[in-house]
Amino acid sequence: MRPEYFSLQSIGHIYTPYREQAPFQSQKKTTGEFYIILDEKYMGGLKELSTFKYIYVLFYLHKVIRDTKMKVRPPWAQNKEVGVFASRSPNRPNPIGLSIVELKKIEGNKLYISGVDAFNRTPVLDIKPYIDELDAIKDANFGWIQESGDLEHLKLHIKGIAH
Amino acid sequence: MRPEYFSLQSIGHIYTPYREQAPFQSQKKTTGEFYIILDEKYMGGLKELSTFKYIYVLFYLHKVIRDTKMKVRPPWAQNKEVGVFASRSPNRPNPIGLSIVELKKIEGNKLYISGVDAFNRTPVLDIKPYIDELDAIKDANFGWIQESGDLEHLKLHIKGIAH
Repeated sequence: MRPEYFSLQSIGHIYTPYREQAPFQSQKKTTGEFYIILDEKYMGGLKELSTFKYIYVLFYLHKVIRDTKMKVRPPWAQNKEVGVFASRSPNRPNPIGLSIVELKKIEGNKLYISGVDAFNRTPVLDIKPYIDELDAIKDANFGWIQESGDLEHLKLHIKGIAH
Repeated sequence: MRPEYFSLQSIGHIYTPYREQAPFQSQKKTTGEFYIILDEKYMGGLKELSTFKYIYVLFYLHKVIRDTKMKVRPPWAQNKEVGVFASRSPNRPNPIGLSIVELKKIEGNKLYISGVDAFNRTPVLDIKPYIDELDAIKDANFGWIQESGDLEHLKLHIKGIAH
């Protein structure tokens, strides 16, 4: 089928300490303040969100240069070439970032969150609740990461844990 | 900040038995064939994807009528009004669907997957590997769903399991 085009818009922005460089999937163990400012017109959509411990944040990777290659080499596994869809590389055909973050507190239209691998002022596209069992798959695997050798070490990279 | 606009495009389409009506989050226990046809120009991006048991599929909810309300009542919890961002309602400011599906087999540009709550020919925006530990959060919760009473029953609805 021929490609179809869609127009999306920012619903708010993520604020992070990352002005120039963002680490890969820095889910935890990061310093500095991370928060989302939701545009005020969407504030009603936050009702009951604070009952969730974790949320998905979908964001537009606005700093990515759009010269997308189909094969990528993860920065922490340079000897491995994988398809872009088998990676979490930000340089993808549609530059949508997906991160699971801990929702610490909501004050008005400000959501305090745990660390996220996004540049300061990254546009937010969507927020969804992360629901236990539905999203926490018990028998998931590590795919090619597992086959690449030192899984324990690579896990630190994947999770953005300093080591 | 003022809203920013972004243009995205389909990279393929999801084929499902749902021509008219799609169940909510029918992750498993569904009959019929579900598959993704990726546009051929992106085929190289599939390298090593088959090593993953589960994948995220991000799709554009093309059949949703765009009269987005900030408060929603889930079809299976009509007595509960929650914010759209505390729900998985398809009727959201940016109509991006997110489902975790089992990746059964890849043949060329055809990905056989487990059941997904999407209409036939839904445009795909992205495919990402679902990575154990990074995405399978151990201490996630059920938020307001848990507080709504009959969690065991609601879980069946959330997971799209017939009962």
